Amino acid sequence: MSDIEIAQQANMLPVFDLAQKKLGIQADDLDSYGRFKAKVSLQVLQQRAQKPDGKLILVTAISPTPAGEGKTTTTIGLSDGLNRIGKKAIVCIREPSMGPCFGMKGGAAGGGHAQVVPMEDINLHFTGDFHAIASAHNLLAAMIDNHIHHGNALQLDTRKVTWQRVMDMNDRALREVTVGLGGPANGFSRTDHFDIVVASEVMAIFCLSGSLSELKQRLGEILIGYSFDGTPRFARELQAHGAMAALLKEALKPNLVQTLENNLAFVHGGPFANIAHGCNSVIATRMALKLGDYVVTEAGFGADLGAEKFINIKCRKAGLKPDMAVVVATVRALKYHGGMALDQLGMLDTHALQRGLENLKRHVNNLQQAFKLPCVVAINHFDQDQDDEIAQVEQAVLEMGAKVVLARHWAEGGKGAETLAQAVVDTLENHAHATCQFLYPDDQPLWEKIQTVAKKLYGAEQVIADSKVMKKLKKFAEKYDHLPVCMAKTPYSFGSDPTMRGVPQPHQLAVRDVRLSHGAGFVVVLCGDIMTMPGLPKNPAAERIDIDDRGVIQGLF
Amino acid sequence: MSDIEIAQQANMLPVFDLAQKKLGIQADDLDSYGRFKAKVSLQVLQQRAQKPDGKLILVTAISPTPAGEGKTTTTIGLSDGLNRIGKKAIVCIREPSMGPCFGMKGGAAGGGHAQVVPMEDINLHFTGDFHAIASAHNLLAAMIDNHIHHGNALQLDTRKVTWQRVMDMNDRALREVTVGLGGPANGFSRTDHFDIVVASEVMAIFCLSGSLSELKQRLGEILIGYSFDGTPRFARELQAHGAMAALLKEALKPNLVQTLENNLAFVHGGPFANIAHGCNSVIATRMALKLGDYVVTEAGFGADLGAEKFINIKCRKAGLKPDMAVVVATVRALKYHGGMALDQLGMLDTHALQRGLENLKRHVNNLQQAFKLPCVVAINHFDQDQDDEIAQVEQAVLEMGAKVVLARHWAEGGKGAETLAQAVVDTLENHAHATCQFLYPDDQPLWEKIQTVAKKLYGAEQVIADSKVMKKLKKFAEKYDHLPVCMAKTPYSFGSDPTMRGVPQPHQLAVRDVRLSHGAGFVVVLCGDIMTMPGLPKNPAAERIDIDDRGVIQGLF
Repeated sequence: MSDIEIAQQANMLPVFDLAQKKLGIQADDLDSYGRFKAKVSLQVLQQRAQKPDGKLILVTAISPTPAGEGKTTTTIGLSDGLNRIGKKAIVCIREPSMGPCFGMKGGAAGGGHAQVVPMEDINLHFTGDFHAIASAHNLLAAMIDNHIHHGNALQLDTRKVTWQRVMDMNDRALREVTVGLGGPANGFSRTDHFDIVVASEVMAIFCLSGSLSELKQRLGEILIGYSFDGTPRFARELQAHGAMAALLKEALKPNLVQTLENNLAFVHGGPFANIAHGCNSVIATRMALKLGDYVVTEAGFGADLGAEKFINIKCRKAGLKPDMAVVVATVRALKYHGGMALDQLGMLDTHALQRGLENLKRHVNNLQQAFKLPCVVAINHFDQDQDDEIAQVEQAVLEMGAKVVLARHWAEGGKGAETLAQAVVDTLENHAHATCQFLYPDDQPLWEKIQTVAKKLYGAEQVIADSKVMKKLKKFAEKYDHLPVCMAKTPYSFGSDPTMRGVPQPHQLAVRDVRLSHGAGFVVVLCGDIMTMPGLPKNPAAERIDIDDRGVIQGLF
Repeated sequence: MSDIEIAQQANMLPVFDLAQKKLGIQADDLDSYGRFKAKVSLQVLQQRAQKPDGKLILVTAISPTPAGEGKTTTTIGLSDGLNRIGKKAIVCIREPSMGPCFGMKGGAAGGGHAQVVPMEDINLHFTGDFHAIASAHNLLAAMIDNHIHHGNALQLDTRKVTWQRVMDMNDRALREVTVGLGGPANGFSRTDHFDIVVASEVMAIFCLSGSLSELKQRLGEILIGYSFDGTPRFARELQAHGAMAALLKEALKPNLVQTLENNLAFVHGGPFANIAHGCNSVIATRMALKLGDYVVTEAGFGADLGAEKFINIKCRKAGLKPDMAVVVATVRALKYHGGMALDQLGMLDTHALQRGLENLKRHVNNLQQAFKLPCVVAINHFDQDQDDEIAQVEQAVLEMGAKVVLARHWAEGGKGAETLAQAVVDTLENHAHATCQFLYPDDQPLWEKIQTVAKKLYGAEQVIADSKVMKKLKKFAEKYDHLPVCMAKTPYSFGSDPTMRGVPQPHQLAVRDVRLSHGAGFVVVLCGDIMTMPGLPKNPAAERIDIDDRGVIQGLF
């Protein structure tokens, strides 16, 4: 059965009732969006300010193959597993981006028997958060061009407007555009770009803000461009942040849905994991920690990007501390990292597997040594996996000093993740106090922060950047040396070249550009090409998506 | 008090309870969107297929001034008035467009003590319908450019792509753009345009469709452009309509909210009243007719545009028949039509008022004689109106053979519209069977339809069009001669020149262009400049809109 078929057969319960019964949220603090989606009032956080937090479990992964290794699936399966062994666990994941549903990727709400539902709604529009983020983003863009049109009091240089436009669609034709054509009534023409909504800085800000007032303040701090004399200009100078925050009023309330096994899940916010930090909202995570004893969350891509930013950006800014990590690995991806071709991963090759295990080892070492985070490795089971292969992975992980568990949640749901759940509980009980630490202190200079991440985590021998980049970085350092760095590189390798599998050695990291996300509060470090507006493939999924007279959707897989 | 202040003091009741108690809708057929917004399942229509319809009352108006004459306000006030005198009445109006809220106009959910609430939500995002419409529209646009990029099997001529992009924002910089710049990876560059969402043909289709299957079928019929050999190409040839309909699944369910007096209102769909037909959705109107004894609805602009399209397009396509019309007039607008300057309308000028009454007279005559629709004129009271002026209007209307009532709903709510409500009930009781008729039959040729509207309703002596337009029309006539025409002209005059007030005489109507809305099923007749993407003013309302820490919005007036 396809994911959508499994999802459509789910026995969903009204989320309004589940939230009251399982989490003790009062009816007044819940806004239903249909029967199976709800938003939770931020009051819930204030009411429970004194309550101790639950345990925070980060699900991360080895360097993935293009198909992904099942991080979201494992996050959901683990939470279902924890609930099955009697623990009060809550999922905290990102909202999927709608655009890619019409391309190649299909939905992004888990898979197999480890999904959050209603799957179609979560993938299409959901509760409208991304539309609200797009509106806030594009309102600022309209106000910028309007300001220039009506006299340009801020003397904005149209060549140096850094704020682009966004749309939640895979639309390559919008990557580079000229706006303001057609004569004086349509403003001044200039080059512009559209990003997909998840790449918007408003998305990153939304996910890093702990309250409506922090959100508004950060929106005001957005850098929109530079005036003719080089002065940086900000959204607050256009008085845009009040209206932008008003547009985000409802969106900021975390969304509550359920897993296929009727356990609760927050699905809220979804920034890119390259030019942004790739984690669900701080507000959802904080709320889940007040409502559950165990919170299972994930971060985008492999641990080199996802876990690093989760800790160094999200946790640093929000004052959170993860208690442990689950590292998802698949036999297939390990063999891929050992050098096998994508279309041969079903075949047996113990040497390739052994070589590929080096990738897992570096991630586990990074988490355990660089971040002091206890680890359990979850082998996400695929039908083709051979017992010998699994034994080989288990043996290798034990030698790394970490626990390892085979997880069958994709095929079996929470039942298939009970062993993993038990391993997680055992690990947490052996580590009563979280010892997780940041990789670098705030006061380390920006350039050194980049070097620290590249050398300690990626194993790079050297970081290089041309003089133009270094000059820009020096300029940022004058005022923003205290900010964390947000590394934007390929997820497929520890290096910046996606074809360097396993553990590339020796390698150097080339920084091609740096950008300031002033409102979000980090410096983006671009290593390699980062696509912020995807395109559709020759035969897009949109052609197969359909709906019948009863409203049943098909083709959204 | 401002509109938003009045709205924020409303004593709202849970709409879920109101819908069950007042309209008998079952809980299973309601999806809450928070406590004060709900969507109603289309099942409700099927369940009540055999039930006779309530009375359908169209609220329309004289040719407005730029400030508008209070049509929405009167629609809401009249329904509250009907409920006060013991009738089961329901409001049916359009959803406001979000973009203009940030410009000059402020909200569009009624005004004073005749509003639908929650006002902020209805104006900002509401239940996400317009976002869904924008997504469906832009998905088709992305699929068109993607098709061209990947080999262009349909041989679409990039110079003749007629499908534009949309955004729900006042953004003049997007009126004319070049897309596909930046090299081969970004597709083929071409000129494109963004319209505001309410101008999308998807919006018109959405509002004219009676079911999900009709919606999908119409979406497939959208004309997207022409191939190099001149063959028209349609959305179904890209297999886009299934995914587009899937995106509109939830949006198609009508939205239920309440008036300040806790009476129910459908607020659903909102096409432009110039290039489209300017009425709320067919589904909402049909549902209201099954649930209420009196349904009060409105159509955009004055009766020359709004009532004409309501009858000739919406009612024709949906098999609806209005029972009577309420024509809203204000003393101020009548004086404006009599020649007074906008900033002098507070002053007394009986001659100007008398001259301006000719505008009202033509509208009333049109409705009574051309459409055979019984009329009541509602004088929407303003504080500055003098008793003598009102008496003068009342006298004139009686001479036109219509009822006339002073309505004070803006200041007093439903209580101020009780007299109007009684006049409406009396009128309906004297006309047990609706006799409303179309202005032209389906089989009248397109060019004659245009002439019929222009001469019979606008009082034009002649309709002119250059040979290019005539050629285009002749081409359309080959296949689409049976379609109704959708007149796109200024609302401020019976003619095509907005400065011709009152009843311009003699005048001729110049048709500047014709366009085929193939999916919606009408031919748009453009007379004069029609702006489909507004801009922001020098000091946009967005600068004043703000939200406090408790989530209370201000500045949205």
